[in-house]
Amino acid sequence: MPPTAVPASPRSPSPGTPYDLLLIGGGVIGLSAAWRAARRGLRVAVADPAPASAAAASHAAAGMLAPVSEVTYTEEPLLRLGLASLARWPAFAAELAADSGHDLDYRAEGTLEVAFGSDDLAVLDELAAFMRKLELPVERLTGRECRRLEPMLAPAVRGGLLAPGDAWVDPRRVTRALLAALERRGVTLIPARVAGLERSGEAVTGVRLAPDGGSPDGGSPDGGSPDGGVVRARRTVLAAGAWSGAMEGLPPEVLPPVRPVKGQIMRLRSPEPILRRCVRGSVHGSYVYLVPRGDGELVLGATQEELGFDTRVTAGGLWELLRDARELVPGVTELEVADVVAGLRPGTPDNLPLIGPTVLPGLSLATGHHRGGVLLAPLTAALLTGEAGDDEGEGLAALCSPLRFHENPRVGENA
Amino acid sequence: MPPTAVPASPRSPSPGTPYDLLLIGGGVIGLSAAWRAARRGLRVAVADPAPASAAAASHAAAGMLAPVSEVTYTEEPLLRLGLASLARWPAFAAELAADSGHDLDYRAEGTLEVAFGSDDLAVLDELAAFMRKLELPVERLTGRECRRLEPMLAPAVRGGLLAPGDAWVDPRRVTRALLAALERRGVTLIPARVAGLERSGEAVTGVRLAPDGGSPDGGSPDGGSPDGGVVRARRTVLAAGAWSGAMEGLPPEVLPPVRPVKGQIMRLRSPEPILRRCVRGSVHGSYVYLVPRGDGELVLGATQEELGFDTRVTAGGLWELLRDARELVPGVTELEVADVVAGLRPGTPDNLPLIGPTVLPGLSLATGHHRGGVLLAPLTAALLTGEAGDDEGEGLAALCSPLRFHENPRVGENA
Repeated sequence: MPPTAVPASPRSPSPGTPYDLLLIGGGVIGLSAAWRAARRGLRVAVADPAPASAAAASHAAAGMLAPVSEVTYTEEPLLRLGLASLARWPAFAAELAADSGHDLDYRAEGTLEVAFGSDDLAVLDELAAFMRKLELPVERLTGRECRRLEPMLAPAVRGGLLAPGDAWVDPRRVTRALLAALERRGVTLIPARVAGLERSGEAVTGVRLAPDGGSPDGGSPDGGSPDGGVVRARRTVLAAGAWSGAMEGLPPEVLPPVRPVKGQIMRLRSPEPILRRCVRGSVHGSYVYLVPRGDGELVLGATQEELGFDTRVTAGGLWELLRDARELVPGVTELEVADVVAGLRPGTPDNLPLIGPTVLPGLSLATGHHRGGVLLAPLTAALLTGEAGDDEGEGLAALCSPLRFHENPRVGENA
Repeated sequence: MPPTAVPASPRSPSPGTPYDLLLIGGGVIGLSAAWRAARRGLRVAVADPAPASAAAASHAAAGMLAPVSEVTYTEEPLLRLGLASLARWPAFAAELAADSGHDLDYRAEGTLEVAFGSDDLAVLDELAAFMRKLELPVERLTGRECRRLEPMLAPAVRGGLLAPGDAWVDPRRVTRALLAALERRGVTLIPARVAGLERSGEAVTGVRLAPDGGSPDGGSPDGGSPDGGVVRARRTVLAAGAWSGAMEGLPPEVLPPVRPVKGQIMRLRSPEPILRRCVRGSVHGSYVYLVPRGDGELVLGATQEELGFDTRVTAGGLWELLRDARELVPGVTELEVADVVAGLRPGTPDNLPLIGPTVLPGLSLATGHHRGGVLLAPLTAALLTGEAGDDEGEGLAALCSPLRFHENPRVGENA
C-alpha cells in the first residue's frame, strides 16, 4: 500500500466529515488502536501534544511480553488477557514491521525466572505448583541448569523456572514504528492537548482542544482558532494512560479509576548482549528483571512506587535496581549507564485494564493497563476495532469493561 | 578595572609580540594560572579546544578543600601543599568573585569525617592520633555528637572527626567564573588542540596548533592557516591534566609521568540542603563523601579506577557510591538524580603534582594534581606567577618540581 498524505490541518475539519475514530493519547495503546483501525479503512485521528514521547509509560517500559512468568495469585483473569494478547503479538509485530519498515527487536525466546536466596526458592516452588495447576508450560530448573542457559548468572542463583513461550520487544521501537505506520496509513496526528469532550445530549461527538494548542514547541498550529478548536468523531477513545483519570470535564460516571504507579528503569549498554533471554528474579523477596536487546542494551527494571504524578529519578530507585540486578548477574556492574528514566503506569483497583464502551454513547476507554500496556496493545486494539473473534472477544471484553466499576453499587445503596 | 577586549585572531599573532605566558589546557589549573598572570599585567593565552568543559577533571570534581580530613600516612608533603593552598583560598575566592561577578558557593564550615562500623572506628582513632601528632586542629566526636552537628546522619554512625578549618567550593562555578574573569582581563582563548611544541634549539618558543583547529564546532577558525598555525610565547605551561602525559612530540626528559585515574560522581538534588557541611566517611573500609551546595545540590563521590582513558559511567560505579552514601545518610535515597559523570584525574607516581620549570628553557609543567586540582589551584597559580612568597615558595616549589623524576638516575646507571 502506498503512503497516504496526511490530511490538512485538523483544526478546521469540514463540519460534515467527523473522524470515524479519535484517540485521546498517543502512547502504545492509542497508537496501536489507531493503526489497526486505519488498516480496516477507518478515518482516524490521534490527539496528543507529543505522541510516543518520553511522557508515555511505554518510553520507560522494558517490553516484556511475559504473561506466564508474571502470573500472580488471584489474577487469572489478567493471565487470560495476557495469553490472548501474546498470541496476537507475532502477527502484530510482522504486520507492523511491514507497514512501517522498522525492526521492532521482537524476540520470543522465553523468560527465565530465577531465585536467589532459599526464601526466594521456596516462593519459586510454590509458584511452579501454581503454574502447573493452571497448566502453564513451564520447566523447573536447578541453579546449574539456569547457568547453562545463561552463563552470566551468579553462582548464588538457586534455581529457576523457564517460560519458553514468553517474548519481548523494544517498546521505543514499537512506538516509533507505529508513528511511521500511521503516517503511511493517513492517520491524522493532532499535536494538541484535549481540553474536554464535545457533547450532543448524552452522546459524545468529539473533543475540544486546549487554546494554547499544547504543541511541543508551544506555538499555535496553523488554522488554530482562539479557543483551540473542535475535533469531531463518531467514536472517541480515551487512551491517556495515567492521566486518563485526571481529564477535566469528564462526568463522574465515566471517569476511569486509574492512578499513576511510578516505575524507574535503567538502560545499560554493553558491546554485545550478556544475556540471551529475559531474566526475572527475586532477591530476598525483591523483584528485578533484565531485558536484553539485540544491540547490547540491557534494561533493568523496575520500581513500583505510589507517589502520584512524580517522575523524578531518585538515588534510592537506582540503588534498588542495581542492588538486586548485580546479585543475579554480577557482570552488570561493568556496563555503561546509557539512561535512567521514570514513567507512570496507569493502575486500576483490580489490576485489569479498562477497555470498551462507557455509559456515554460515542465514548470508549482504553486505559488502566498498568504494567501490561505493551503486552496488551494488540488485544486492546483488536477489542476496540472489532478484530477480536466473537467467542474470544466477548469473554475478554467483559473482563475489561469499564462498566464494571459503575454497575455494581454496594449492597444497601439505592435500596 | 574595566573589561578589556579580547585580541583579534590568535592564529596570526604579530611575529614580534609573543605572549608572555601560554597555557596548554583550560581546566581549573590552566585557567587559574592564566587569570593570576593576567592580573599581574602579563599578556596571556590559553589553548584548549573547549575550556572549562565536561572533559576537564574539575567538571567531575566535588570541590572539597579538605587537606586536613584527607591527610594520609606518608603524605605529609601533600598536606603541606594543601594547607598552603587552603590558606590562599579565601583571598583567591574573593578576588575571583569580584573579577568575574560570579558567586562560587565557597564555604569554610569544616569537614566531618565519620566512621560506620567498628572497623571504621578503629581506623578513625588511629587517624586521630596521627593528626594530633601533626598538630592538626581536629576534634574527636562521639556518634551522638556527630548527629547533633548533622541530624541526617544514620544512627549507625559510630563516631567522627571534625576538621573545622576545611572548606569547599563548587568547581563548575569556579571554572565559569575564571572564564568570565579571563575575558575581563583580556586573556586570549584559543579554541584549538595543541599539536606540538615550537622549538628554537633547546628553548621552547610556543606551540603548533592542530590543523583541524580542534574547535568545538569542528570548523576552521578565522585566519587559521592550513597547518593550524603557531602561537609564540616566552613561557609555555603544559596544564593538560591527565592528557599531559600523552602529548605528541614531547621529548622524554620533559614528558610528565601522569596517568588517568577515573572518578565517577553523582549529583543529587533536594529542595533544600540536607547537610550543613561536607561529610566524608568510611563504610567497612570503603570511602565516600557528600558535598552540599547552597542550592540543595548534593554531590556523592567518588570512585578511583585505574582504567586508562575510560570515561564511561558504569552501573558498578553508581552502585558503589549509593551503597556507601545511603549507609551514612539514609535520606539520600529520596533525592532526585540530577547528573552522573566520570572524569579523569592526573595521577603521579608519588601523588604530588608537577609544577614548575622543566629542563627545556621556556617550558613549565602544571599537572599531576590528581584529586587536588581545585584545592591546589591558588598555590599552583602563585608558584607559576611568582606570587608565592620567597620563603614559602622555595620549599613548596622544590616539593613539586618536575625535575624530581629526572634528576635521580638509579644507582649504577651512568656509573
